[in-house]
Amino acid sequence: MLAFENDYSEGCHPRILEAFARTNFESAPGYGTDRFCAQAAARIRSACNAPDASVFFLTGGTQANQVVIDALLKPWEGVVAAETGHVAVHEAGAIEATGHKVLALPQHDGKVNAGELREMVESFYGDANHDHMVFPGAVYISHPTEFGTLYALSELEELSAVCRAHRMPLYVDGARLAYGLAAPGSDVTLPDLARLADAFYIGGTKVGALCGEAVVFPHGEPAHFVTQVKSHGALLAKGRLLGVQFDALFSPAEPEGAAAGAAPALCAAEDTLYYALGAHALAMAERLKRVLAAHDLPFYLDSPTNQQFVVLENGAYERLRERVRVSFWERVDAKRTAVRFATSWATRPEDIEALDRLLGDR
Amino acid sequence: MLAFENDYSEGCHPRILEAFARTNFESAPGYGTDRFCAQAAARIRSACNAPDASVFFLTGGTQANQVVIDALLKPWEGVVAAETGHVAVHEAGAIEATGHKVLALPQHDGKVNAGELREMVESFYGDANHDHMVFPGAVYISHPTEFGTLYALSELEELSAVCRAHRMPLYVDGARLAYGLAAPGSDVTLPDLARLADAFYIGGTKVGALCGEAVVFPHGEPAHFVTQVKSHGALLAKGRLLGVQFDALFSPAEPEGAAAGAAPALCAAEDTLYYALGAHALAMAERLKRVLAAHDLPFYLDSPTNQQFVVLENGAYERLRERVRVSFWERVDAKRTAVRFATSWATRPEDIEALDRLLGDR
Amino acid sequence: MLAFENDYSEGCHPRILEAFARTNFESAPGYGTDRFCAQAAARIRSACNAPDASVFFLTGGTQANQVVIDALLKPWEGVVAAETGHVAVHEAGAIEATGHKVLALPQHDGKVNAGELREMVESFYGDANHDHMVFPGAVYISHPTEFGTLYALSELEELSAVCRAHRMPLYVDGARLAYGLAAPGSDVTLPDLARLADAFYIGGTKVGALCGEAVVFPHGEPAHFVTQVKSHGALLAKGRLLGVQFDALFSPAEPEGAAAGAAPALCAAEDTLYYALGAHALAMAERLKRVLAAHDLPFYLDSPTNQQFVVLENGAYERLRERVRVSFWERVDAKRTAVRFATSWATRPEDIEALDRLLGDR
Amino acid sequence: MLAFENDYSEGCHPRILEAFARTNFESAPGYGTDRFCAQAAARIRSACNAPDASVFFLTGGTQANQVVIDALLKPWEGVVAAETGHVAVHEAGAIEATGHKVLALPQHDGKVNAGELREMVESFYGDANHDHMVFPGAVYISHPTEFGTLYALSELEELSAVCRAHRMPLYVDGARLAYGLAAPGSDVTLPDLARLADAFYIGGTKVGALCGEAVVFPHGEPAHFVTQVKSHGALLAKGRLLGVQFDALFSPAEPEGAAAGAAPALCAAEDTLYYALGAHALAMAERLKRVLAAHDLPFYLDSPTNQQFVVLENGAYERLRERVRVSFWERVDAKRTAVRFATSWATRPEDIEALDRLLGDR
Repeated sequence: MLAFENDYSEGCHPRILEAFARTNFESAPGYGTDRFCAQAAARIRSACNAPDASVFFLTGGTQANQVVIDALLKPWEGVVAAETGHVAVHEAGAIEATGHKVLALPQHDGKVNAGELREMVESFYGDANHDHMVFPGAVYISHPTEFGTLYALSELEELSAVCRAHRMPLYVDGARLAYGLAAPGSDVTLPDLARLADAFYIGGTKVGALCGEAVVFPHGEPAHFVTQVKSHGALLAKGRLLGVQFDALFSPAEPEGAAAGAAPALCAAEDTLYYALGAHALAMAERLKRVLAAHDLPFYLDSPTNQQFVVLENGAYERLRERVRVSFWERVDAKRTAVRFATSWATRPEDIEALDRLLGDR
Repeated sequence: MLAFENDYSEGCHPRILEAFARTNFESAPGYGTDRFCAQAAARIRSACNAPDASVFFLTGGTQANQVVIDALLKPWEGVVAAETGHVAVHEAGAIEATGHKVLALPQHDGKVNAGELREMVESFYGDANHDHMVFPGAVYISHPTEFGTLYALSELEELSAVCRAHRMPLYVDGARLAYGLAAPGSDVTLPDLARLADAFYIGGTKVGALCGEAVVFPHGEPAHFVTQVKSHGALLAKGRLLGVQFDALFSPAEPEGAAAGAAPALCAAEDTLYYALGAHALAMAERLKRVLAAHDLPFYLDSPTNQQFVVLENGAYERLRERVRVSFWERVDAKRTAVRFATSWATRPEDIEALDRLLGDR
Repeated sequence: MLAFENDYSEGCHPRILEAFARTNFESAPGYGTDRFCAQAAARIRSACNAPDASVFFLTGGTQANQVVIDALLKPWEGVVAAETGHVAVHEAGAIEATGHKVLALPQHDGKVNAGELREMVESFYGDANHDHMVFPGAVYISHPTEFGTLYALSELEELSAVCRAHRMPLYVDGARLAYGLAAPGSDVTLPDLARLADAFYIGGTKVGALCGEAVVFPHGEPAHFVTQVKSHGALLAKGRLLGVQFDALFSPAEPEGAAAGAAPALCAAEDTLYYALGAHALAMAERLKRVLAAHDLPFYLDSPTNQQFVVLENGAYERLRERVRVSFWERVDAKRTAVRFATSWATRPEDIEALDRLLGDR
Repeated sequence: MLAFENDYSEGCHPRILEAFARTNFESAPGYGTDRFCAQAAARIRSACNAPDASVFFLTGGTQANQVVIDALLKPWEGVVAAETGHVAVHEAGAIEATGHKVLALPQHDGKVNAGELREMVESFYGDANHDHMVFPGAVYISHPTEFGTLYALSELEELSAVCRAHRMPLYVDGARLAYGLAAPGSDVTLPDLARLADAFYIGGTKVGALCGEAVVFPHGEPAHFVTQVKSHGALLAKGRLLGVQFDALFSPAEPEGAAAGAAPALCAAEDTLYYALGAHALAMAERLKRVLAAHDLPFYLDSPTNQQFVVLENGAYERLRERVRVSFWERVDAKRTAVRFATSWATRPEDIEALDRLLGDR
C-alpha cells in the first residue's frame, strides 16, 4: 500500500544507522555529556552561524515544546500561539499540564501576524485589570506551520521586533524545519532563526532521525536547564542516542574522506545532510503537486513544503483510502474532506509514479 | 581507560542494530500503533505469563516513573517510596512536578519493609486529622534497588498483600530488571512481578537498548493512558524505535531459523535475549567481585547484582580514578569514599582482567 | 463620590454583623465542622429543594472555580467555557495552574449555546486523533454571565441534556446568583439549578457577605473533597466565618421571633434574605436604567440584572469618572468606551437620585 | 464543655467587630487596594521597623505558605523544612500541588538547626550529580513551632546567615506569632524577623481575627505577586475584610482618643493589640501550666508558648475527653497518649479555674 500519510513512517537515514554501528562500542558518559552530543552541537552552531548558542537534545516535538516553553515562562505568564498551533490543539494539554495557558491568536494559513500580536499585547497592558489576567510571556510559532506554510523573512523580523519590544522570547517549533529551509521560494535560513528567535528546535524525528529534536538557544539557555529537562522526565541516560544522530544529520551531505585525526567538518546549513534531506522531500513534493494537479484534485491551500492538502469528495476519499495511506485533515463540509499527502526524506520517485498510475485508475 | 562507571555507557546490543537495519524502510504508523510494538508487547506478555497485560513503551526511567505514578495516583494521594528510592532523590522532583508528594519510608539496603509500610498506612488512617494530610496512594519499589539489592519473593508477596489490603497499586521500577531476574540466588520471576505488582517497567536503557522502557500493567492500564503519556510530552511519533528494540530483546536468545511466514516466536522469560544479557552481566559481576576481594577492597554492602560497591581510602580513590571510570557513591567519612563498579551486557572478560592487573599495579 | 463601580464595595449586610456579634464567643470546632456551617447547609438544601446536596463554603469566586473545576476534571480533561467566561480571561490562569485547559466556545452576550456545545463535543469525538487532544470534561457557565445576561430555563435544560449525554458535569458560577434569581423575567430557580447542574456556587461576596461562596453538589461531592480543598490552600480554620454568614443569608428575609429552642427556620429560596438582597439590587437597577435612558446614554447590551453597560464618548467618560466611580469595560472603538454601572444589595435610592442629578449637570 | 483544643474556636476580638461595624458602609475599592489595607500595612511596617516592607493579606495559613513558597521558589527548587513542619505534614500536599518538593531536615523539638541546614546544602552542592536533584531553594521555619517551641534570636541569626550565604530566602510561618513575641523568655522581636527573614506571615486566624494572615516581605516582594496570588485563587474581592482586621490588631492596645482628622497612630510591636492578645494568652498558659503540674500531668516537652503538651494514660485521656475538648497529639506508646491544651486571646481565667476543679474531680 502506498504511504503518504506523514513524514515519520520509516526508520532513519542510512548514514545514521552507519553512525550507530560505527560508534556502538565506544564507551561514553551519560546524560548528554558525551562527545557525540558535543560534536553535534558544534556542527549545529556552525550551521546556525551562532557560535554562542546553547544546544540540547530532546526526544520529541511535544516534549521539546513543553520543556522549553515551561522554562521560558514565568509562573504568571502564558504562551501566545496561533489558534491552530500544535501546542494549542494537538498536544493533549502538555502546556497546561505545566501550569501555563496558551493564549490564542487568529491564524492565517497557520501563521500569526505581527500586527495582531502587537495589538494583543498592547491591549493586554492597556487593560487596567491586566494583573487579573495571564501575561503574554513568550510567543510560539511553527515554521513550517501545521499547514505546511512558511513565514517570509520579513514576517519573522516583524514578529521578532514585537517580541523584543515586549521582552517576550520568540520560540520556533521546527519539527519540519528542513522542509522549510530547503523550500524553493523561502528566504529564511538557520542563521536568520538564530538571529531572530530566542529558542527554536531543529526537528529530527520527521527529517530522517529515529527520534530527536535539537533545541537551540542562540543567546543562552534558561537557568539550570538540564535540571528542568530532568524534572520533566525528558533527560535521556544515553544521550549519545541523540548526539550520534544529529552529528550525522549536520555533517556534510557529501562526506569527503577526512584525514586521520582531523577535526570533524563543520559546514554551512545548506551543505548539511539535514538540508539535503529537506531538499529531496521538496523535490518529491513538486512532483507530487504536479501529479495531484494533473488528476484535478483541488488544493485546500497553497503549501510550498512537503505537506500538500487536497479536497476530495467523501466517496473519492473512501476509495482512495483503500489504496493509499493519507491523513484525514478536516471535514470541509458535509460532502467533502480535506486530506494531507506528505513527502519526506524517504519518498522515492517510484512512489510518486505509483500514485500517478493509481489516481489514473480511479 | 577502563569503564565500570555504569551500565549505559555503550550503544546497544548488535541484534538491535540488525533489527533497525532490517526494518528500516518498512512503512509503519505512528505513536506506538505499529506492528513492532504489537509484536514486542506480545512477546512481553508471553515472558510475563500475563496474557491480559497492557504494554506501553516509553523512552527513559524517570519518564516512566513520572508518567505511571501520576496516572496511578488520585489528586489527593502521594507515592510511598524508600527514602533512597530513585523517585525520592534522583529525579529532580519529577514526581512533585506533577503535583504529588513522595512519602518516604526508611530503607534497609535500599528496600522497604512490608511491616513498616503497613504501620505507616495504618497510622495514617488512624490519625483523626488524616484529611489534612497526603494519602498514601501507591507504593514504589525498585528491583534491583539503587544499592543493587533484591527483594525475595516472600518480601514482594508481603508488600503486595499490604498494598492490596489498602487498595494501593504496587509499582516496580525495573530499570535494571534483567540484572535481578538472572541473579543466581533470586527467586523472583517476571510472572511473579505480573502477579504481585499492578504496574512495573522492564528497563531497556541499562540492558542493551539504545533507549526505552516497557511499561506493563498486568491487570489493565489507567484510563486514557495514551493521552496521559502525550500530555507529559512522552509519546514518541516513531514508536517503532521502541517496538523494534523490545521485539529484539524479548525474542529468543538463541534464534532458530524461523520458517518463512511463521509467527514470531514467543518464549519464557529465561529464554529471551533480555534474560541472557542479564545473565552475562551477572557472570561478569561474579568475576568482578572476586577481583575486588582479591585486592582487599572492602565491600560497602553485599550486592547480588551487577552493581558492586566498595569503600576506598580517599587517596586510593583519587589514584584509581585516573585509570578507571567508576561512580562516586557517597562519602563514608572524612577519609573514605564509597564507589560503585557496574558490569553490564557489554562488559567483556578482558575488561575484568585488565582491572585485575591494574589493581595489582597500585 | 458616587460609587457604581461594582457590587462588592461595602462591607456586609447588618444581619450578618449581628450574627457575628451574637455568636462571637461560642466555641466551635474548626474547618467547617461547626454548627453554623451545618445550619447554613441545611438552609441551602431547603432553598434548593435538594435534600441530598453536599454543601461546602469557600472564600472567593476564583477559588471556588479553581477548586471545584479541578476536582470535577480528570487529568486528561479540560473545562469548556465561553470565550468571555471568567475562568477563561479574568482569573490569571487559575485553571491552567491546576493543569487543565479552558476550551473556549463562542459567546453570545456572554452565554454559550447548547447546539454549539454539542457540535464541539461531537466534533472532538469524531476526530480520529482526539487522543492527542484535551478531552472536554466539564462545562462552565456563569449565571448571571459576565455581561449581566441570564440563561432561560429552556437553555439550561438544553445545556444540561448535552452535558449528561456526554457525561460532562455542568458547573454554574453563581457569583451574582441572587441578581439572577430575583430578576423579573427570569424563570430559573435554585431548585432548577440543583436539578440541572452537577455543581454550582451561590455567591456571597457580591451579595452582602464579607466574603464567601457556598459550593453545592446536588448529587454528591467529588471524592475526598475536603482534602482537595486543603491542598488548594482553601480550607479555612475558622470555617464558622462562612457558616455564620450563609446561615444569615439563607434565613428568612423577614425573621419572626422564633420560639425558644426551636429549630432554625428553613424556607424556600424566594423567602430568604439572600433573595431579598437580590430583589433590592434589581429594583435599584430598574431605576438606574431609567435614569441612564433618560439621559440618552446608549446601552451596550440589554442586561436584565444588576450590571448595566453603556457606551460613552471618551470625553464624556473622562468627565464622568471625575464624579462617579464606574468600571471600564472595554474600548468600543477609537472614540467610544463601554462602561459598567452596578447596583447591589447596598445601593440606596438616593444614590440613583444623585446620579440622575449629576448626569443632568453635564 | 471546657474547650482547650485550639486557639481558633471563638470568633474575633470585639475591637474587630467594632471596626467592621464602624466601617461597614464606607465604599472601598477591591482586591486589597482599599485604605484599610493601606493603613494596616503602614501599622505593620511600623511595628516591624521596616519602612520598605511590602505587606499583603491572605485568608489562611496553608494558603499563605502555598502562595509565598511557590512565589519564592524557582521551578527547579524545593523548600527545606523540619520533618514535622506544617508544610511537610499537615497541608495535604499544598506545596507539592504547586510542583515543589519539601526537603525534610531533622527536627529538634520542632526546630531546625543551622548546622544541619548548612551541612545539607553543602552536601547537596558537593554532590557531583546535584543537577539530578531538587535544589534547596528556600527555608521554611515556624515560630512558634508546631510544638510550641521558639527559636532564640541567636538561632535565627545563624539560620539567616546560612540562608544568605546560599541565597535561599528564609520564610517564617507565624501562624501563632503573637504567642511567640509575647513569651516571657523570648528575645525575638518583629523587627528581628524583618531583619533576618525574607518573608514571614503574621498570623491573625489564631490570634483574634475571624480570618487572615499578613504576609510581610521586608526587602521587597516577588515579581507580580498580586497576579500570583490571584492564580492561586487567593485574592479576595473584598480585601477590606482583611485590612480592617489587621488595622485593628496593629492599632495601639490602649487606644487614646485621636484628635479629629489625625493620622492613625503607628506604634511599636509591643504596644499593639496584637501583642496584647499574645501576652494575655501567655498569662493564661502560665496558669494552665501550674494547674497541669499541680495535678501531676507530665509534660511531653517544655513549651514556653500557648500550646502545652502532656502525656496521659489512655484511660485517663478517655475520661478527660468527656469533659474537656483537647487535641489528640500523638500516640506515645501502647498505653499513653500525648494531648495538647491551648490557650488563646479568648481564654478566661475562669476557664483555667474550671479545669483545675475538673482535674481535681478525677
